[in-house]
Amino acid sequence: MYLEHINGPEDVKKLDSKARLTLAQEIRENLLVMESKHGGHFGPNFGIVEATIALHTVFNSPVDHIVYDVSHQTYPHKMLTGRKQAYMDPALYDSVSPYTDPAETPHDLFKIGHTSTSISLALGLAKARDIMGGKENIIAVIGDGSMSGGEALEGLNVAGELNSNFIIVFNDNQMSIAENHGGMYDQFAELRRTNGTAENNLFKSMGLDYLYVNDGNNIEALIDAFEQVKDMTRPVVVHINTLKGKGYAPAEANKEKWHWHMPFDIQTGQSPASGSSESYAGIFAEYALKRAKTDPKFLVLMSAVPGLLGLSQERREELGKHYLDVGIAEETAVAMASGAAHAGAHVVWGSSATFIQRTYDQLTQDLSLNQNPAVIMGSGSIRGLMAATHQGLSSISMIANIPNMVYLAPSNAEEYIAMLDWALEQDKHPVYIAISSGPVVHVEGSVRTNFDDLNTYEVTRQGSKVAVLALGDFYDLGEKTVEALNSTLGIEATLVKPYFASGVDENLLDNLVKDHDVIVTIEDGIIEGGWGQNIASYLGTSSARVLNYGVKKAFYDRVNIADLMRESHLDPELIAADVKQVLGL
Amino acid sequence: MYLEHINGPEDVKKLDSKARLTLAQEIRENLLVMESKHGGHFGPNFGIVEATIALHTVFNSPVDHIVYDVSHQTYPHKMLTGRKQAYMDPALYDSVSPYTDPAETPHDLFKIGHTSTSISLALGLAKARDIMGGKENIIAVIGDGSMSGGEALEGLNVAGELNSNFIIVFNDNQMSIAENHGGMYDQFAELRRTNGTAENNLFKSMGLDYLYVNDGNNIEALIDAFEQVKDMTRPVVVHINTLKGKGYAPAEANKEKWHWHMPFDIQTGQSPASGSSESYAGIFAEYALKRAKTDPKFLVLMSAVPGLLGLSQERREELGKHYLDVGIAEETAVAMASGAAHAGAHVVWGSSATFIQRTYDQLTQDLSLNQNPAVIMGSGSIRGLMAATHQGLSSISMIANIPNMVYLAPSNAEEYIAMLDWALEQDKHPVYIAISSGPVVHVEGSVRTNFDDLNTYEVTRQGSKVAVLALGDFYDLGEKTVEALNSTLGIEATLVKPYFASGVDENLLDNLVKDHDVIVTIEDGIIEGGWGQNIASYLGTSSARVLNYGVKKAFYDRVNIADLMRESHLDPELIAADVKQVLGL
Repeated sequence: MYLEHINGPEDVKKLDSKARLTLAQEIRENLLVMESKHGGHFGPNFGIVEATIALHTVFNSPVDHIVYDVSHQTYPHKMLTGRKQAYMDPALYDSVSPYTDPAETPHDLFKIGHTSTSISLALGLAKARDIMGGKENIIAVIGDGSMSGGEALEGLNVAGELNSNFIIVFNDNQMSIAENHGGMYDQFAELRRTNGTAENNLFKSMGLDYLYVNDGNNIEALIDAFEQVKDMTRPVVVHINTLKGKGYAPAEANKEKWHWHMPFDIQTGQSPASGSSESYAGIFAEYALKRAKTDPKFLVLMSAVPGLLGLSQERREELGKHYLDVGIAEETAVAMASGAAHAGAHVVWGSSATFIQRTYDQLTQDLSLNQNPAVIMGSGSIRGLMAATHQGLSSISMIANIPNMVYLAPSNAEEYIAMLDWALEQDKHPVYIAISSGPVVHVEGSVRTNFDDLNTYEVTRQGSKVAVLALGDFYDLGEKTVEALNSTLGIEATLVKPYFASGVDENLLDNLVKDHDVIVTIEDGIIEGGWGQNIASYLGTSSARVLNYGVKKAFYDRVNIADLMRESHLDPELIAADVKQVLGL
Repeated sequence: MYLEHINGPEDVKKLDSKARLTLAQEIRENLLVMESKHGGHFGPNFGIVEATIALHTVFNSPVDHIVYDVSHQTYPHKMLTGRKQAYMDPALYDSVSPYTDPAETPHDLFKIGHTSTSISLALGLAKARDIMGGKENIIAVIGDGSMSGGEALEGLNVAGELNSNFIIVFNDNQMSIAENHGGMYDQFAELRRTNGTAENNLFKSMGLDYLYVNDGNNIEALIDAFEQVKDMTRPVVVHINTLKGKGYAPAEANKEKWHWHMPFDIQTGQSPASGSSESYAGIFAEYALKRAKTDPKFLVLMSAVPGLLGLSQERREELGKHYLDVGIAEETAVAMASGAAHAGAHVVWGSSATFIQRTYDQLTQDLSLNQNPAVIMGSGSIRGLMAATHQGLSSISMIANIPNMVYLAPSNAEEYIAMLDWALEQDKHPVYIAISSGPVVHVEGSVRTNFDDLNTYEVTRQGSKVAVLALGDFYDLGEKTVEALNSTLGIEATLVKPYFASGVDENLLDNLVKDHDVIVTIEDGIIEGGWGQNIASYLGTSSARVLNYGVKKAFYDRVNIADLMRESHLDPELIAADVKQVLGL
């Protein structure tokens, strides 16, 4: 077995062509076993095994710098740069980040979890090299799915004017997470069909040199190509045609399903039934299918993550003209939503809060300044926290503070539907709806359906002395906090459901402070810049004491969520204890 | 005179070719007089006169929708759509927005002040049309400078897959505000050289049809081209080759200087000397030129607005390899700054706060998550407020709340230089420095030069009862507030210079509340999500009352700044009166 002797790129460089082939096979076998037990990004890693071996054969990492886009295709890279045990020993499966991380090794340059960034980041390395007189190769490895993103396209154009070494490896596996979208992809197909000679070449039109490798899973062909471009003093694109999921038949056959996969049986490719638990994603998908039948103006925009809203291929087809995936192009999605809303469409764009970050300017200028009634839905929650690269806990700070934007936070599935209905039917405001990634909550009876009176909160339980304002999916924490205040301090506290994070209900607060000494706010996100601080500011001149709960601003990487909740006092008993202290009891 | 009879596009359509020529001449003459007296965007409007006449001759606005990118080239459009008086009657020069504004007329679709948005906004109109069964033409008019921006490039790709009418008029005047940057521009030159037949065509590589008009200032040639693409059922680009500043020799000769121009003498093109008042921009330029001589790792990145930091063409040349303008590509600029800082460069990127909005995701993921020590400088201030399209008052809410980001706000020129020195020489933190657009303040004596101890504020005047924390360029307001408190209430207040907007000095605040009843915060920006609310939140459980000053979140369009300051109580006397009330005096 070669793999067990690979402790760094220097060991890869010693291998001959036959050994390299065996190494590729060993990498796949180990990855297959690891992923079958642990789950993870599958297709991207299986497609890039050969290219990774070739890169580490030709280039001299970490002197030469290789920047991987998104970095979810770096399992082979990690295996070849001293971290193979994390993919071979079940006890160590979680010992390395699923993304690149410079804290692990100098072979990783950046923590990267969002797409389309590699070219621009690598350009910074190249420019620094040029002013400081270095000679190292700078390589950005980017997939075709990422190429439609604004930052990648900007980067291509800037690279085209760089007058020095810069190598872009364009890993064309003909897929994003789902299918690709946009006019460039037909032209990439033409390039593949013509062995790289087709006339309409995006890279050349940006001023870059270009080299095509038709069998991007052939190590020796890749080595030849990389040798050709190594130490070149002009920017060049090496377009490699690879097979996503290569080497595992189920993954080759269904690329979308196998982009990321939960643990599975290697023989059958099947995963144990997950009990198909209800999710807010699935609720939206059903809502959308129903609405599309009766609302001719209805339009769902997505940007490459349809699964996030439960929109499987069958459902996308059923939505027909009411559905448009623009690919990885979040900025365009928001601007389109604004344009479509201006033209009278009932339009919703949904994504992860972490990806919505890409659209701060579009939310501000294209949408809110124009006050077009488009609906944006974002998911992100402390309870769903995974990697720091995909945190998504700043959406209140980011979005609720944009002028004109109405930020709604539902506490349960029925409110969520009611807010969607209201937001899509009104014609005055851009509206953001926060989707919980926690478990789905249902309530009996009627819920509020009209949100025309902006920033009107609701007292759901009248008490005195202490008021608990619990926003959105943390309303349950508010309910439990009221119970804890009762059981531990004997206080009958008031409970308030705010609905809105984009404004303060001044009337309600003015009334509250008349007979409440402590106001508690609870929100699902980072405290700094958040909703609770608006409350604290408004009550700054009152005699009431204010306690804001959320998490402190930080990047939380693979943390234990229960621990984080406790440390942040997002816990009814701990909040009750804090209130006790403030009251001097 | 034809112009005086033009009350809408229907009057343009009545003209014959000879009358159209005369109309173009009349538009230029009126614009020249207006701009000579009033100032404004010059080059872009003078270059697009003919295209605007041709658009309104061929298309049927407002049934057909024309979306202008940036919209600073819409003076001719405004003159032809019922608003000519604003360009002919000095009393009415300020009666219409310098940008498109749907509140003025249905011929304007969006309020637009940021570049690169037109294609994506127009795509929304097109998709809404398609689902609702309309047949109108959708036209996006975009300049070559805007084409390098991520949102525009994303839009091109999405347009390439649209299977219906969509017309992009690519107004190629071979300039951004300054020269263009990026590999695409050489290829555009090739297209112009070959009458549109060159092989490397960006638009075709995105799947779009393409038509070239070599004389983009020839009305009849433009009409022919627009007639060809009108009602087409596929997306198409009409590439028109125009002359920026056409018709006024000084503007044709110096396109950068005449992109926007202050009032001038028509005969000479000269403006009255402005007294060359000192600016923070100019201070940076001198700092950069000096630093470049001694620091081999120094790198200044810009994105198309070099004038913002006083970097004239001569200075850019003097900076040599220490300077790189990436063109309109803010996202790439921030990612590059992160990459260059990772590689050890001392790198600074500067822009307007309003344009920095485009980089929220890059600031978060590419930069702060990676904790690379790049320096970002942004200008934006209530005192410099102009159009809502370029507001830039949210930088504290946007940037100071990003984990790991150090947000510094200097109060004077000496602190500004000291912060630049510190930020460029340290290697631990991404740093944002807020540049005031107010007048330059100088102080005698030494200033703080070390900011290693994050979030340490400084008591600059010890008093009691009331403490005034005045951030950055509003420190002067703090000084005056302390004086007002003394003169009106006889209170010797404490004055605090916070330096940092990205954190709370908990020790200092804990001490302050021991003998201060009121804490006043003053900041230059929107209150919601800002720095003062962090203070209010931290002091929520103390007995001190907190008053946060800034402006309320809103889009402020062409407001009177003095009025806004007063309404916001950003006024020493009004703050003193508020304090009096809170103290019950």
